[in-house]
Amino acid sequence: MASPIRFYFDFASPYGYLAAHRIDPIGAKHGREVEWRPVMLGAIFKVTQSMPVMHRPLQGDYLRHDVPRFARLMQVSLTWPDSAPIGALAASRAFYWLLDGRPVDAVRLAKAVYHAHWGQGRDMGPAEAVAEVASSIGIEGDALLAAIQEPAVKERLKAETDAAVAAGVFGSPTVLVDGELFWGCDRLDQVERWLETGGW
Amino acid sequence: MASPIRFYFDFASPYGYLAAHRIDPIGAKHGREVEWRPVMLGAIFKVTQSMPVMHRPLQGDYLRHDVPRFARLMQVSLTWPDSAPIGALAASRAFYWLLDGRPVDAVRLAKAVYHAHWGQGRDMGPAEAVAEVASSIGIEGDALLAAIQEPAVKERLKAETDAAVAAGVFGSPTVLVDGELFWGCDRLDQVERWLETGGW
Repeated sequence: MASPIRFYFDFASPYGYLAAHRIDPIGAKHGREVEWRPVMLGAIFKVTQSMPVMHRPLQGDYLRHDVPRFARLMQVSLTWPDSAPIGALAASRAFYWLLDGRPVDAVRLAKAVYHAHWGQGRDMGPAEAVAEVASSIGIEGDALLAAIQEPAVKERLKAETDAAVAAGVFGSPTVLVDGELFWGCDRLDQVERWLETGGW
Repeated sequence: MASPIRFYFDFASPYGYLAAHRIDPIGAKHGREVEWRPVMLGAIFKVTQSMPVMHRPLQGDYLRHDVPRFARLMQVSLTWPDSAPIGALAASRAFYWLLDGRPVDAVRLAKAVYHAHWGQGRDMGPAEAVAEVASSIGIEGDALLAAIQEPAVKERLKAETDAAVAAGVFGSPTVLVDGELFWGCDRLDQVERWLETGGW
């Protein structure tokens, strides 16, 4: 069995949202499991002395033009939320609450949160909003709200973010395949080629 | 006649070097003139409160792995210079010294400097090195050394960099086509598609 692909992303990242539409089909096409791993870019940017792209002079303007253009090319629905970037703590913690015992639900929740926030423009920052989306796909919202306050769940998100940094992740999305990192939604073509050819 | 493509780059940028191999063929394929425009990223990074990618924690490590990988994919020769990033003042000024009267020579010099620095790993920071490369392709090295000290030439580079910032350029390479900016060597496929389809 070929090793899994790892998909690092932040719910606050619109490029992560776009990539989330392609990563599972890419994995399926090449017989690779995809391991979804939300991380906290805010914590990573402290390590890299950086800041959210949306807040960067010039580059922020570019992002606001480029993301809709990229979404049209991919034919992915996009509604810019009023409150971007979101604080993705609640959604990210909820993902890890589910991951070990209910990995399919974890990814279902990730996709639903991404769709609600970037596809429909609904603010997924508040924990209640995440719980509502969870409930709408059959995941217990009340249990979610309790779980994301548990120290173990909070620690898990920190540990996963630290592990991502240790693996070299500095932005969203980043794909790890066979020890190779590819950063950016615009690199998924290279990920596909790597999987097809075994590397170059 | 369709409007030109503008190709913004910094000689210190290895992704600019990679893109320099594709931009003229892309223009030729679609009947577009390509306007080469070296800019000083150092000055732009002051505006964007940023720093050279090579110096950024984590992202610098990624770049040093990614650029050779990207070069292999493109089958472009790459020899990492000992002194990177270069101070590209001399090469950039020399380009603008030539541009108005001898535009073909300006681009020939740009390609020769890029090839010497990133293809052969020769430090193109010192003005003498730029003059030597110029001489090797029939451009007067002594005249070049004098010209790049002229206030008008120095001002031209500053003005071109300011104009690039005004156009929204924050990184190298950036391609402007029909009012649309595309940042990154990994976006040249989108540039081609834009030219083929007239946009989306």
